[in-house]
This record gives sequence, structure tokens and C-alpha cells, in this order.
Amino acid sequence: MSVAPASHGAALLDRGRAGEVAAISQLITALEARSDVGRLILGDVYAAGGGAHVVGVTGAPGSGKSTLVGALAKELRRRGRTVGVIAVDPSSSLSGGAILGDRIRMQEHTLDPGVFVRSMSSRGRFGGVSRATVDAVAVLDATGWEVVVVETVGVGQAEVEIVQIAHTTVVVSVPGLGDEVQAIKAGLLEVADLHVVNKADRADASKTIAELLGMLSLAGPPAAGGWAVPVLGTVGLDGGGVPELADALDAHLAWLRSSGELVRRERAAAIARIRAIVRDLVLERMHDPAHGRHFEAAVDEVTARRLDPHTAASRLIDRVGADAESRVRGARS
Amino acid sequence: MSVAPASHGAALLDRGRAGEVAAISQLITALEARSDVGRLILGDVYAAGGGAHVVGVTGAPGSGKSTLVGALAKELRRRGRTVGVIAVDPSSSLSGGAILGDRIRMQEHTLDPGVFVRSMSSRGRFGGVSRATVDAVAVLDATGWEVVVVETVGVGQAEVEIVQIAHTTVVVSVPGLGDEVQAIKAGLLEVADLHVVNKADRADASKTIAELLGMLSLAGPPAAGGWAVPVLGTVGLDGGGVPELADALDAHLAWLRSSGELVRRERAAAIARIRAIVRDLVLERMHDPAHGRHFEAAVDEVTARRLDPHTAASRLIDRVGADAESRVRGARS
Repeated sequence: MSVAPASHGAALLDRGRAGEVAAISQLITALEARSDVGRLILGDVYAAGGGAHVVGVTGAPGSGKSTLVGALAKELRRRGRTVGVIAVDPSSSLSGGAILGDRIRMQEHTLDPGVFVRSMSSRGRFGGVSRATVDAVAVLDATGWEVVVVETVGVGQAEVEIVQIAHTTVVVSVPGLGDEVQAIKAGLLEVADLHVVNKADRADASKTIAELLGMLSLAGPPAAGGWAVPVLGTVGLDGGGVPELADALDAHLAWLRSSGELVRRERAAAIARIRAIVRDLVLERMHDPAHGRHFEAAVDEVTARRLDPHTAASRLIDRVGADAESRVRGARS
Repeated sequence: MSVAPASHGAALLDRGRAGEVAAISQLITALEARSDVGRLILGDVYAAGGGAHVVGVTGAPGSGKSTLVGALAKELRRRGRTVGVIAVDPSSSLSGGAILGDRIRMQEHTLDPGVFVRSMSSRGRFGGVSRATVDAVAVLDATGWEVVVVETVGVGQAEVEIVQIAHTTVVVSVPGLGDEVQAIKAGLLEVADLHVVNKADRADASKTIAELLGMLSLAGPPAAGGWAVPVLGTVGLDGGGVPELADALDAHLAWLRSSGELVRRERAAAIARIRAIVRDLVLERMHDPAHGRHFEAAVDEVTARRLDPHTAASRLIDRVGADAESRVRGARS
């Protein structure tokens, strides 16, 4: 390995920390592509992080999350904070990233050097959204953005894991969706630090707020010194309720620090980061040149029903590890 | 390993193939729990499969998928077909399976021995939904259900992978949702063999149907002998349009067979099965007694920012494989 990529990466990180947006974009791209530059700078990127307030915003499709995040970014800028946004496109896992109408509304921030917006979309057939998202958040953290917002659709397992890298998780609901959405709310109830009912200018918003308060009250009051999860109403389109949301984010961060919960969250985030990367990396490895033919052979066997996919998967996991082990032994001897 | 679990598994599979629903449920549970019975019967389960028409039904939350699947099951029963349904709860990744209002509507089928319904929910913190779903579909296939429907929310990467184990993929839309849902449609456009606009009795349904037809027409007409993706309107609640949906499923299966596409799909399904299982299994292994302490140590290092999560993930993958390799070498020597 030549020295050049390492020093190039270090230079990008320095320039990014000095506020150069192009360098930050290049760093994210380098990590996403797992280029030499990306791989060599990764340790420095993570070592430099830890200063940002990482906020996860999740909710069902159609809840107006992107518009709300745009309004939140505007409010935080008004308060003098710098804001980085990583938006994981719901459509990206298959289409490679469709242009979202809501995303366009974020563009009004692009001329403001205090706001950085990046959409993550899947690159190629074998995914990698989780890994790339986790790394992009780390780059924004390392380059000094004060608030880093990760926006994702909170339905799938991988998507929920992405949100779990956050210090503060905001779950966005909207009034008047059907049974299934209520169930998703139920699924997300236990990870929410703040509930937001967006489109709160609708007539049925108070019913949704009351339902959420009812579900929260089932868990009983918070312990002494605990965090009482608030339910806020917002109107993303005109910014209604967004100052209160920004206040609540600050209050949650203050509570995390004063209660000692921040330490526990940092550990939970580390678990979520490792898990999200493992999930993608193991599949990437199976398709790399060293293992691709074994994967293809396993697929042939499973297609012919001579082998069950569980045994095939187990052997493939053995192999990607075993080969690495052989390389390590070879390098040591 | 004693012989008893293997013969118990074989007996369950025989009883399941004879139509005993309790035996089928026990098989699914055994596979989900990775009990000895489950692990030993897995090869036989996959070897016995291949007869079912596996239909994936996906779409955004609130599209009325469950109601539609219920109506489809009723229609297929009217045609003398047996139907197995595996429903992946959108809320299950965190709540451990909330009770869905829509699910209750499926219960009218439970007294019909020609319909089998199973909801999959996450068991414990470390997921396992993908693996369990893939295995449950295999059990229904192996025990002779003619049509096996897998119903899931098509948003996350893992969820989409579950749908890819299907021969025929039905994407359900509804009229009048927002921009983000349109984007999801775009993301799912390329995997749909059939588009269904549910709640087609709404005034704005024809607009949604026209939009879908417009998006499909951008891809140009199908090649000679190719499949022209239809857009159907249904009303899940009263069964409107559902006979046409059942006809379209039959037509698609006939086309798969006559065109030779079925062979390609079986291979694509094998890939999706292996990938879904790998994704879950590698994380399960990291938390097993042999590797748990290494995982915890890695989490400590990442939390302290002495190690980046990418390097940690890579080493953990090496280790779960390397240990297996050591065991294999030990057994061989």
C-alpha cells in the first residue's frame, strides 16, 4: 500500500474540518466506494468524532419527514447551529435513488454553508446502504457539524438500526392513516425519545396526539430523573411547532448528559454501527473476487434443491472468515 | 447428535405433508428456534419443496395488503386451490409483533383447512425475521400448499429480499398518498410482475392507475414473448377485482413456465434465500456463547473510539468464520 492514499485522506479530513464542503463530499464518496483513501482514513474519521448531537428522524412513508427535517434545519440555523443531514431514500434499495419531491425542498439550504445535505442511495445490486449511512454520519461528526440528522423510513430492521446510531430518536406520525401505520407506531414506540405528530393542522391531529399519549401512559410515569417522552405537534410546511421541537432536542441532549445516559447511548450506537456494517460487509465479501465463485456454486446447489440455503449460508460465512484467517496466518509466518 | 430429533423432524414433515396443520406449525417453530429438530430436518424440507406457486405481495403501509391477501385467499379457495400465507408484521422488528387490525380479518379463514396463515414476528433483539420467513415459506412449499403468499412491507432492503424469494411479485399501491409513497412505487416498479391499485373504489384511483401505466410505458413495450406487467384495480374489502388478480397470477405462472423464465427465477430466489439467511445468521453467530465476549470487547473499543466500527465488523466476521474453520480442521484431524 503506497503512502499517497493515506495522506490524501488525511488532507481531505483536514480540509473537511476546515469547512470545505467538497472535501466532505469526497470523503463520504471515498468511504462509500471503499477506496484505498476511504479505508485508510476510516480510523481517523471515527477517532475525530463524538462532538455532534446525532438525531435520528424516522416514521412511515408519507409522514412528511423530509419537509419537517428541512424546517428543523432552518430553525437550528436561526439558532446559529450548523446542521448536517443524511437522508436515506426509501426507494434506494432497488431503484438506485429516485428523486424525491420532498428532497427538492431541502435544496433551499444548499446555498447556506451552515447546512450540508446528502442523500444515500444503494449502489448496485448488493446493497450497502447501512454501511454507507453509518460512515457518512461519522464523516459529518468528524468534520464538526454540530447537529447531524439521519432521516430514514423506520420500517425494516436495517433502517431501524440506522436510527439507533442516534443520541436522540424522533418518531414522526401523521393523523389519520390506517391500522398498519398504528402498528408501526407501536413498533417504534419504545425507541422514541420524542414523538412528533406532523401535519398537526389537520382536524384529526388531536386524536392522534391523544392516542400516542395514551400508549405512552401505559408504560407508566418515568422513574425519578428519567426522561418523559413528549408528544409534539408540528406543521413541516410552515414551520409550526418546529421551535418547540428544537427546544425538545436540546432538552433531551442536556438530560442525556446530566443523567449519564449519554454513555449508555454511545455504547448502544457502537453496537448498532457494528451490526449495520456487519450486515452489509458479509454480503459484500461473498461477492468479491475471492469468494464469488463459491457463492455461485452454492446458488447452483440451492437452486437444484441439493442443498438447503441455511447450510449454504453457514458455509459461506465460514469461508469468508476462514480465508481471512489464512491470510493473517500467511502474513504472520 | 442423537437420532431422535431427526426422526421427530421427519415425522413432523410426513404429518405436515398429510395435511396436519399442527405439525406444520411445529415445523415452522422448530426452524425458527433453530432447535435440533429444525436443523436436522432443514435439508429434507428444502428437498421436498418446489411445487408451490410462491407469490410475494408488497407495498407501503396503509395500502390494505392484508385485507387484499385475505380476499385473494378466499378467491383461490373458491377455485379449489390450497393457500398458505406468511405475513411479516411491519411492527415486529421492535415490538415483537403487535396485533394488527387487518390480521383479524384473516381469521375468518382459520376454520378452513385449505388455508394456513402464519404471522412472523421478530423474536428477541437480534432480529431473525428474514431467516425465519424464508424457512416458513419453505415449510409451506414442502407440505404441499399450492399457492404460498408472502406478505411484507416493501420498504427496507431485507423486506425486499423476502419478496424476491417469490415467483410472482405483486406490488400494491393506493390512491392519493404523498410524494414519498410515489417514490417507493418507483423503487418497486422494476420488481413488480403485477401492479395492483387497491381501494380502487376511491375517486382518485384512476389517476393512480394512469400514473403507474405511464411509469411502466417509459420502459417501453415488452420484448416478443415477454411479460406485459398489468395494472389491476381491486377493492380488498368487498373482493372487487380479485378474480382478475387470481387470473393474472395464473397467467404469470403459465408465462414463467412457457418462457423458461421460471428457471431464472428459481435461481434468483435461491440467491435471495441465501442472502436473507446470511444477513441474520452472521449476527446470530456473533452473539452466541463462543463469540459474544469478542463482540462485547469490540463494542467497548468502538465506544471509546479507539477502533472504527468497520474494522471491528471485519474482524468479527473473520472470527466467526475462522472458529468454524478451526472446528472443521479439528474434526478432520
